[in-house]
Amino acid sequence: MPEIAIAELEDFALELAHTAGGIAQAHFRQPVTVENKSPTAFDPVTNADRAIERVLRTAIEERYPDHGIVAEEEGERKGKGRYTWYIDPIDGTRSFMTGSPLWGTLIGLVRGEQPLFGLLAQPVLEEVFFGGPSGSWLIEADGRARLRARACASLEAAVLASTHPDMFTGDRAAAFHELGRRCLLTRFGGDCYNYAMLAAGHLDLVVESQLKPYDIVPLLPILEGAGCVVTDWRGDPPLRGGDVVAAGSRELHRAALEILQLR
Amino acid sequence: MPEIAIAELEDFALELAHTAGGIAQAHFRQPVTVENKSPTAFDPVTNADRAIERVLRTAIEERYPDHGIVAEEEGERKGKGRYTWYIDPIDGTRSFMTGSPLWGTLIGLVRGEQPLFGLLAQPVLEEVFFGGPSGSWLIEADGRARLRARACASLEAAVLASTHPDMFTGDRAAAFHELGRRCLLTRFGGDCYNYAMLAAGHLDLVVESQLKPYDIVPLLPILEGAGCVVTDWRGDPPLRGGDVVAAGSRELHRAALEILQLR
Repeated sequence: MPEIAIAELEDFALELAHTAGGIAQAHFRQPVTVENKSPTAFDPVTNADRAIERVLRTAIEERYPDHGIVAEEEGERKGKGRYTWYIDPIDGTRSFMTGSPLWGTLIGLVRGEQPLFGLLAQPVLEEVFFGGPSGSWLIEADGRARLRARACASLEAAVLASTHPDMFTGDRAAAFHELGRRCLLTRFGGDCYNYAMLAAGHLDLVVESQLKPYDIVPLLPILEGAGCVVTDWRGDPPLRGGDVVAAGSRELHRAALEILQLR
Repeated sequence: MPEIAIAELEDFALELAHTAGGIAQAHFRQPVTVENKSPTAFDPVTNADRAIERVLRTAIEERYPDHGIVAEEEGERKGKGRYTWYIDPIDGTRSFMTGSPLWGTLIGLVRGEQPLFGLLAQPVLEEVFFGGPSGSWLIEADGRARLRARACASLEAAVLASTHPDMFTGDRAAAFHELGRRCLLTRFGGDCYNYAMLAAGHLDLVVESQLKPYDIVPLLPILEGAGCVVTDWRGDPPLRGGDVVAAGSRELHRAALEILQLR
């Protein structure tokens, strides 16, 4: 099969983001149907999550029927070629449910094992964070600006963010706690938006656990194009999700990894 | 001294909010000067906090020279009459510093011991949450909508929010943890914006500790006008800050207080 021009794929992804934003906005702060996906805990999904994923899947299947899809609500659809879309219709469903704008629609494209580009669309703030071969950008109505991480070199001066302390269990909780103790400040909340703020140079470290592939793969090109270093807690590429450490500089990543590495 | 018409005071407060929003926006996501106010911990203040408070104090002193002021950065100015303004130039400085829009300028007016009205202005989202004798309102560019808390009757179905787990120490940490265990979901982050989302019916409970008077007094009219019940952890009015429990319904407030009451 011939390669598709990356500009065409990027434009298509931005169209998907625009569509997703319209659906999300129509449901935001409206009475939503919340269902629990887990038999043992509270893992919410709303009618907005489901509606966005359905529309995006259909659009991809029509336009690129050979492409694979890995998405939160309806799972995996194997493709015939090397392209796979990673989609989280609403990353931060708990934020969405509680009126906070710190959620986003994540859309990323992988060829083989290589993330090509990815985006985080936040329609309330009218922002798209985009990363690909041309670098990383914050796209707003009045133009685009380059995203660049800031170079904080030491844990003592670093601001660390993570979605919720309860995402860490056992040894991981102890390691995260020790890391937090060594940093200037720890912030909770934020979901995917923390990674956007890291790429934009407003945070220094994001550390999380129990992520799914679609929670992190679309963010990798944004982070790497802005100069961040992102791995799992062993230092390997986090293409399968799990434990993630993302830092604004190589020095800080190394310092954090030293504390987090599971012994 | 003659009473001042409340409409005049409200209009003046909305002008102050507009001014504050302009200053905050000019500093948001720009390189800011962060100083540490505490000798023993990290208690940040930015040049934006200082600039907003200075401008608001000056405006109040010029227009109402007899009024008192209780504000975060420059402290208290005793008035000659019964009116006192409570101001937090940026409630959520840590959010502001890290690029999140979940902060706000809080402005409230108290006559004697009675909060008259209060507002939370969030300029990135272009929202003002206002509460006073005419009820509680979300004011946006295209109009205003009434704020109403939702009536969640049981802890088991309640979404609880709080700014950070570290704000609770000793017995308070144990009590908060027990409350969290009994609720459906606990969210961290948010600062003053959690109270706005409670008034708007997107959260059920906000529980905090170590608040200052200007952190909560401006929010009381917004919350009470939306049907919320707000007290300290002993059930008394929280006019001096400290430990606060705010609930969207009387039943939920009673259930939370039962767990939180310090024994």
